[in-house]
Amino acid sequence: MSGMGQLRDDEALMRRALDEAQRALDHNDVPIGALVVDETGAVVATAHNERERAGDPTAHAEILALRKAAEACETWRLDGLTVVATVEPCPMCAGALVNARVKRLVFGAFDSKAGACGSLYNLCSDPRLNHEVAVTSSVLAPECAAMLERFFAERR
Amino acid sequence: MSGMGQLRDDEALMRRALDEAQRALDHNDVPIGALVVDETGAVVATAHNERERAGDPTAHAEILALRKAAEACETWRLDGLTVVATVEPCPMCAGALVNARVKRLVFGAFDSKAGACGSLYNLCSDPRLNHEVAVTSSVLAPECAAMLERFFAERR
Repeated sequence: MSGMGQLRDDEALMRRALDEAQRALDHNDVPIGALVVDETGAVVATAHNERERAGDPTAHAEILALRKAAEACETWRLDGLTVVATVEPCPMCAGALVNARVKRLVFGAFDSKAGACGSLYNLCSDPRLNHEVAVTSSVLAPECAAMLERFFAERR
Repeated sequence: MSGMGQLRDDEALMRRALDEAQRALDHNDVPIGALVVDETGAVVATAHNERERAGDPTAHAEILALRKAAEACETWRLDGLTVVATVEPCPMCAGALVNARVKRLVFGAFDSKAGACGSLYNLCSDPRLNHEVAVTSSVLAPECAAMLERFFAERR
Protein backbone atom coordinates (compact mmCIF):
# COMPACT_ATOMS: atom_id res chain seq x y z
CA MET A 1 0.00 0.00 0.00
CA SER A 2 1.21 3.52 -0.74
CA GLY A 3 2.31 5.72 2.13
CA MET A 4 -0.66 8.06 1.74
CA GLY A 5 -3.12 5.16 1.49
CA GLN A 6 -1.68 3.64 4.65
CA LEU A 7 -1.94 6.94 6.49
CA ARG A 8 -5.55 7.38 5.39
CA ASP A 9 -6.36 3.88 6.62
CA ASP A 10 -4.52 4.46 9.91
CA GLU A 11 -6.47 7.67 10.44
CA ALA A 12 -9.77 5.93 9.76
CA LEU A 13 -8.87 3.26 12.33
CA MET A 14 -7.77 5.90 14.82
CA ARG A 15 -11.18 7.56 14.56
CA ARG A 16 -12.71 4.25 15.61
CA ALA A 17 -10.22 4.00 18.49
CA LEU A 18 -11.23 7.53 19.54
CA ASP A 19 -14.91 6.48 19.52
CA GLU A 20 -13.95 3.56 21.74
CA ALA A 21 -11.93 5.86 24.06
CA GLN A 22 -15.01 8.06 24.45
CA ARG A 23 -16.87 5.14 26.01
CA ALA A 24 -14.48 5.15 29.00
CA LEU A 25 -16.04 8.49 30.01
CA ASP A 26 -19.31 6.71 30.87
CA HIS A 27 -17.59 5.22 33.91
CA ASN A 28 -15.10 7.98 34.68
CA ASP A 29 -12.06 6.15 33.39
CA VAL A 30 -9.25 7.97 31.58
CA PRO A 31 -10.42 8.00 27.93
CA ILE A 32 -8.01 5.74 26.06
CA GLY A 33 -9.16 3.35 23.36
CA ALA A 34 -7.59 0.51 21.38
CA LEU A 35 -8.43 -1.75 18.45
CA VAL A 36 -6.87 -4.95 17.12
CA VAL A 37 -7.06 -5.17 13.33
CA ASP A 38 -6.12 -7.96 10.92
CA GLU A 39 -4.15 -7.69 7.68
CA THR A 40 -7.29 -6.94 5.65
CA GLY A 41 -8.16 -4.04 7.98
CA ALA A 42 -11.02 -5.92 9.66
CA VAL A 43 -11.45 -5.12 13.37
CA VAL A 44 -10.85 -8.22 15.51
CA ALA A 45 -11.30 -6.58 18.94
CA THR A 46 -12.00 -3.20 20.52
CA ALA A 47 -11.56 -2.06 24.13
CA HIS A 48 -11.23 1.01 26.28
CA ASN A 49 -9.57 1.69 29.60
CA GLU A 50 -11.57 0.17 32.47
CA ARG A 51 -9.13 0.43 35.35
CA GLU A 52 -11.52 2.27 37.66
CA ARG A 53 -14.68 0.43 36.64
CA ALA A 54 -13.09 -3.01 36.89
CA GLY A 55 -10.81 -2.14 39.83
CA ASP A 56 -8.08 -3.90 37.87
CA PRO A 57 -4.58 -2.38 37.53
CA THR A 58 -4.05 -4.28 34.27
CA ALA A 59 -7.31 -3.17 32.61
CA HIS A 60 -5.73 -0.71 30.18
CA ALA A 61 -7.32 -0.51 26.73
CA GLU A 62 -4.45 -2.33 24.98
CA ILE A 63 -4.36 -5.25 27.44
CA LEU A 64 -8.13 -5.74 27.20
CA ALA A 65 -8.02 -5.51 23.39
CA LEU A 66 -5.20 -8.09 23.21
CA ARG A 67 -7.09 -10.47 25.50
CA LYS A 68 -10.26 -10.15 23.43
CA ALA A 69 -8.32 -10.65 20.19
CA ALA A 70 -6.61 -13.76 21.59
CA GLU A 71 -10.00 -15.15 22.55
CA ALA A 72 -11.39 -14.42 19.07
CA CYS A 73 -8.32 -15.95 17.39
CA GLU A 74 -8.12 -18.87 19.88
CA THR A 75 -4.38 -18.36 20.36
CA TRP A 76 -2.06 -16.12 22.33
CA ARG A 77 0.11 -15.58 19.22
CA LEU A 78 -1.29 -12.58 17.42
CA ASP A 79 1.15 -12.69 14.48
CA GLY A 80 0.24 -10.37 11.65
CA LEU A 81 -2.19 -8.25 13.68
CA THR A 82 -2.03 -4.50 14.25
CA VAL A 83 -2.92 -2.69 17.47
CA VAL A 84 -4.25 0.86 17.18
CA ALA A 85 -4.17 2.88 20.42
CA THR A 86 -5.09 6.51 21.04
CA VAL A 87 -2.10 7.02 23.37
CA GLU A 88 1.48 5.71 23.45
CA PRO A 89 1.44 2.43 25.43
CA CYS A 90 2.94 2.26 28.93
CA PRO A 91 5.64 -0.35 29.77
CA MET A 92 3.01 -2.96 30.74
CA CYS A 93 1.10 -2.57 27.49
CA ALA A 94 4.17 -2.29 25.25
CA GLY A 95 5.53 -5.46 26.89
CA ALA A 96 2.21 -7.18 26.20
CA LEU A 97 2.38 -6.21 22.49
CA VAL A 98 5.81 -7.86 22.27
CA ASN A 99 4.63 -10.93 24.23
CA ALA A 100 1.62 -11.28 21.89
CA ARG A 101 3.91 -11.03 18.82
CA VAL A 102 1.77 -8.37 17.16
CA LYS A 103 3.12 -7.09 13.88
CA ARG A 104 2.43 -3.40 14.14
CA LEU A 105 1.43 -0.67 16.59
CA VAL A 106 -0.21 2.57 15.50
CA PHE A 107 -0.66 5.17 18.21
CA GLY A 108 -1.92 8.73 18.54
CA ALA A 109 -0.52 10.98 21.25
CA PHE A 110 2.88 10.52 22.86
CA ASP A 111 2.86 10.10 26.66
CA SER A 112 5.94 11.86 28.00
CA LYS A 113 5.31 10.58 31.54
CA ALA A 114 4.94 6.86 30.98
CA GLY A 115 5.23 6.09 27.26
CA ALA A 116 7.33 3.04 26.41
CA CYS A 117 7.29 3.26 22.61
CA GLY A 118 9.58 6.23 22.10
CA SER A 119 9.19 8.53 25.13
CA LEU A 120 10.83 6.79 28.11
CA TYR A 121 11.58 3.41 26.53
CA ASN A 122 11.48 1.71 23.15
CA LEU A 123 10.17 -1.67 24.25
CA CYS A 124 8.67 -2.46 20.83
CA SER A 125 12.05 -2.02 19.11
CA ASP A 126 14.55 -3.87 21.30
CA PRO A 127 16.58 -6.46 19.34
CA ARG A 128 17.43 -8.21 22.64
CA LEU A 129 13.78 -9.27 23.07
CA ASN A 130 12.40 -12.19 21.04
CA HIS A 131 10.08 -10.04 18.93
CA GLU A 132 9.91 -6.51 17.56
CA VAL A 133 6.78 -4.54 16.70
CA ALA A 134 6.76 -1.93 13.91
CA VAL A 135 5.59 1.40 15.32
CA THR A 136 3.75 4.28 13.63
CA SER A 137 3.27 7.24 15.95
CA SER A 138 1.37 10.55 15.97
CA VAL A 139 -1.70 9.46 13.97
CA LEU A 140 -4.40 12.06 14.79
CA ALA A 141 -2.21 13.03 17.73
CA PRO A 142 -3.95 16.39 18.41
CA GLU A 143 -7.40 14.76 18.66
CA CYS A 144 -6.06 11.96 20.88
CA ALA A 145 -4.26 14.38 23.19
CA ALA A 146 -7.25 16.74 23.32
CA MET A 147 -9.52 13.97 24.61
CA LEU A 148 -7.17 13.37 27.56
CA GLU A 149 -6.66 17.08 28.20
CA ARG A 150 -10.41 17.71 28.40
CA PHE A 151 -10.81 14.80 30.83
CA PHE A 152 -8.09 16.04 33.20
CA ALA A 153 -9.11 19.72 32.90
CA GLU A 154 -12.67 18.87 34.01
CA ARG A 155 -11.33 17.06 37.09
CA ARG A 156 -8.90 19.74 38.23
CA MET B 1 12.50 -7.03 60.83
CA SER B 2 16.13 -8.12 60.83
CA GLY B 3 17.83 -8.92 57.54
CA MET B 4 18.09 -12.62 58.35
CA GLY B 5 14.45 -12.79 59.49
CA GLN B 6 13.33 -11.10 56.28
CA LEU B 7 15.37 -13.51 54.18
CA ARG B 8 13.92 -16.50 56.03
CA ASP B 9 10.41 -15.17 55.44
CA ASP B 10 11.13 -14.45 51.76
CA GLU B 11 12.44 -17.99 51.32
CA ALA B 12 9.33 -19.46 52.94
CA LEU B 13 7.15 -17.44 50.57
CA MET B 14 9.30 -18.45 47.60
CA ARG B 15 8.72 -22.12 48.45
CA ARG B 16 5.00 -21.45 48.17
CA ALA B 17 5.55 -19.68 44.84
CA LEU B 18 7.53 -22.72 43.63
CA ASP B 19 4.63 -24.99 44.63
CA GLU B 20 2.35 -22.74 42.61
CA ALA B 21 4.78 -22.80 39.63
CA GLN B 22 4.69 -26.60 39.71
CA ARG B 23 0.96 -26.49 38.98
CA ALA B 24 1.63 -24.97 35.52
CA LEU B 25 3.16 -28.32 34.52
CA ASP B 26 -0.30 -29.93 34.65
CA HIS B 27 -1.20 -28.03 31.48
CA ASN B 28 2.23 -27.81 29.84
CA ASP B 29 2.79 -24.16 30.60
CA VAL B 30 6.24 -22.82 31.49
CA PRO B 31 6.43 -23.33 35.30
CA ILE B 32 6.45 -19.85 36.81
CA GLY B 33 4.52 -19.00 39.96
CA ALA B 34 3.63 -15.83 41.84
CA LEU B 35 2.04 -14.77 45.13
CA VAL B 36 0.70 -11.48 46.43
CA VAL B 37 1.30 -11.05 50.16
CA ASP B 38 0.18 -8.36 52.59
CA GLU B 39 2.26 -6.60 55.23
CA THR B 40 1.52 -9.30 57.82
CA GLY B 41 2.79 -11.99 55.44
CA ALA B 42 -0.71 -13.31 54.68
CA VAL B 43 -1.17 -14.55 51.12
CA VAL B 44 -3.78 -12.47 49.27
CA ALA B 45 -3.52 -14.22 45.87
CA THR B 46 -1.61 -16.98 44.11
CA ALA B 47 -1.29 -17.75 40.39
CA HIS B 48 0.84 -19.58 37.88
CA ASN B 49 1.56 -19.05 34.21
CA GLU B 50 -1.45 -20.05 32.06
CA ARG B 51 -0.50 -18.62 28.70
CA GLU B 52 -0.95 -21.88 26.79
CA ARG B 53 -3.95 -23.15 28.72
CA ALA B 54 -5.83 -19.86 28.51
CA GLY B 55 -4.52 -18.92 25.04
CA ASP B 56 -3.91 -15.47 26.52
CA PRO B 57 -0.64 -13.59 25.86
CA THR B 58 -1.10 -11.65 29.12
CA ALA B 59 -1.69 -14.70 31.34
CA HIS B 60 1.71 -14.64 33.05
CA ALA B 61 1.76 -15.62 36.73
CA GLU B 62 2.34 -12.06 37.96
CA ILE B 63 -0.48 -10.50 35.90
CA LEU B 64 -2.94 -13.16 37.06
CA ALA B 65 -1.83 -12.78 40.69
CA LEU B 66 -2.22 -8.97 40.52
CA ARG B 67 -5.70 -9.30 39.01
CA LYS B 68 -6.77 -11.76 41.71
CA ALA B 69 -5.32 -9.54 44.44
CA ALA B 70 -7.13 -6.49 43.06
CA GLU B 71 -10.37 -8.45 43.07
CA ALA B 72 -9.78 -9.57 46.67
CA CYS B 73 -8.86 -6.03 47.76
CA GLU B 74 -11.63 -4.41 45.64
CA THR B 75 -9.21 -1.81 44.26
CA TRP B 76 -6.56 -1.55 41.56
CA ARG B 77 -4.21 0.20 44.02
CA LEU B 78 -2.22 -2.52 45.73
CA ASP B 79 -0.24 -0.18 48.02
CA GLY B 80 1.71 -1.96 50.70
CA LEU B 81 1.54 -5.39 49.06
CA THR B 82 4.48 -7.58 48.04
CA VAL B 83 4.65 -9.75 44.92
CA VAL B 84 6.77 -12.91 45.10
CA ALA B 85 7.67 -14.45 41.71
CA THR B 86 9.87 -17.42 40.90
CA VAL B 87 11.44 -15.64 37.90
CA GLU B 88 12.42 -12.03 37.16
CA PRO B 89 9.36 -10.31 35.64
CA CYS B 90 9.27 -9.44 31.92
CA PRO B 91 8.54 -5.84 30.78
CA MET B 92 4.77 -6.45 30.76
CA CYS B 93 4.75 -7.82 34.30
CA ALA B 94 7.22 -5.30 35.72
CA GLY B 95 5.12 -2.51 34.19
CA ALA B 96 2.03 -4.02 35.82
CA LEU B 97 3.74 -4.04 39.24
CA VAL B 98 4.43 -0.30 38.86
CA ASN B 99 0.89 0.39 37.61
CA ALA B 100 -0.55 -1.50 40.60
CA ARG B 101 1.64 0.51 43.01
CA VAL B 102 2.90 -2.60 44.79
CA LYS B 103 5.44 -1.93 47.51
CA ARG B 104 7.92 -4.70 46.98
CA LEU B 105 8.93 -7.42 44.53
CA VAL B 106 10.80 -10.55 45.59
CA PHE B 107 11.98 -12.78 42.77
CA GLY B 108 14.01 -15.97 42.35
CA ALA B 109 15.96 -16.53 39.13
CA PHE B 110 17.15 -13.75 36.84
CA ASP B 111 15.94 -13.95 33.23
CA SER B 112 18.78 -12.75 31.03
CA LYS B 113 16.60 -12.88 27.88
CA ALA B 114 13.56 -10.86 28.95
CA GLY B 115 13.98 -9.75 32.57
CA ALA B 116 12.95 -6.15 33.25
CA CYS B 117 13.98 -5.88 36.92
CA GLY B 118 17.75 -5.81 36.54
CA SER B 119 18.65 -7.83 33.43
CA LEU B 120 17.52 -5.84 30.37
CA TYR B 121 15.62 -3.04 32.12
CA ASN B 122 15.02 -1.69 35.60
CA LEU B 123 11.35 -0.82 35.24
CA CYS B 124 10.66 -1.13 38.98
CA SER B 125 13.32 1.46 39.80
CA ASP B 126 12.79 4.29 37.33
CA PRO B 127 12.35 7.67 39.04
CA ARG B 128 10.68 9.04 35.87
CA LEU B 129 7.68 6.75 36.42
CA ASN B 130 5.06 7.65 39.04
CA HIS B 131 5.92 4.76 41.38
CA GLU B 132 8.92 2.65 42.33
CA VAL B 133 8.89 -0.89 43.64
CA ALA B 134 11.58 -2.15 46.05
CA VAL B 135 13.22 -5.25 44.57
CA THR B 136 14.83 -8.23 46.29
CA SER B 137 16.36 -10.67 43.81
CA SER B 138 17.90 -14.16 43.85
CA VAL B 139 15.75 -15.70 46.61
CA LEU B 140 16.08 -19.50 46.15
CA ALA B 141 17.42 -18.70 42.68
CA PRO B 142 18.93 -22.17 42.04
CA GLU B 143 15.63 -23.94 42.80
CA CYS B 144 13.66 -21.46 40.66
CA ALA B 145 16.06 -21.76 37.73
CA ALA B 146 16.19 -25.57 38.01
CA MET B 147 12.42 -25.84 37.60
CA LEU B 148 12.61 -23.98 34.29
CA GLU B 149 15.68 -25.87 33.12
CA ARG B 150 14.00 -29.23 33.73
CA PHE B 151 10.93 -28.08 31.81
CA PHE B 152 12.90 -26.98 28.74
CA ALA B 153 15.29 -29.96 28.85
CA GLU B 154 12.34 -32.37 28.70
CA ARG B 155 10.97 -30.61 25.61
CA ARG B 156 14.19 -30.45 23.63
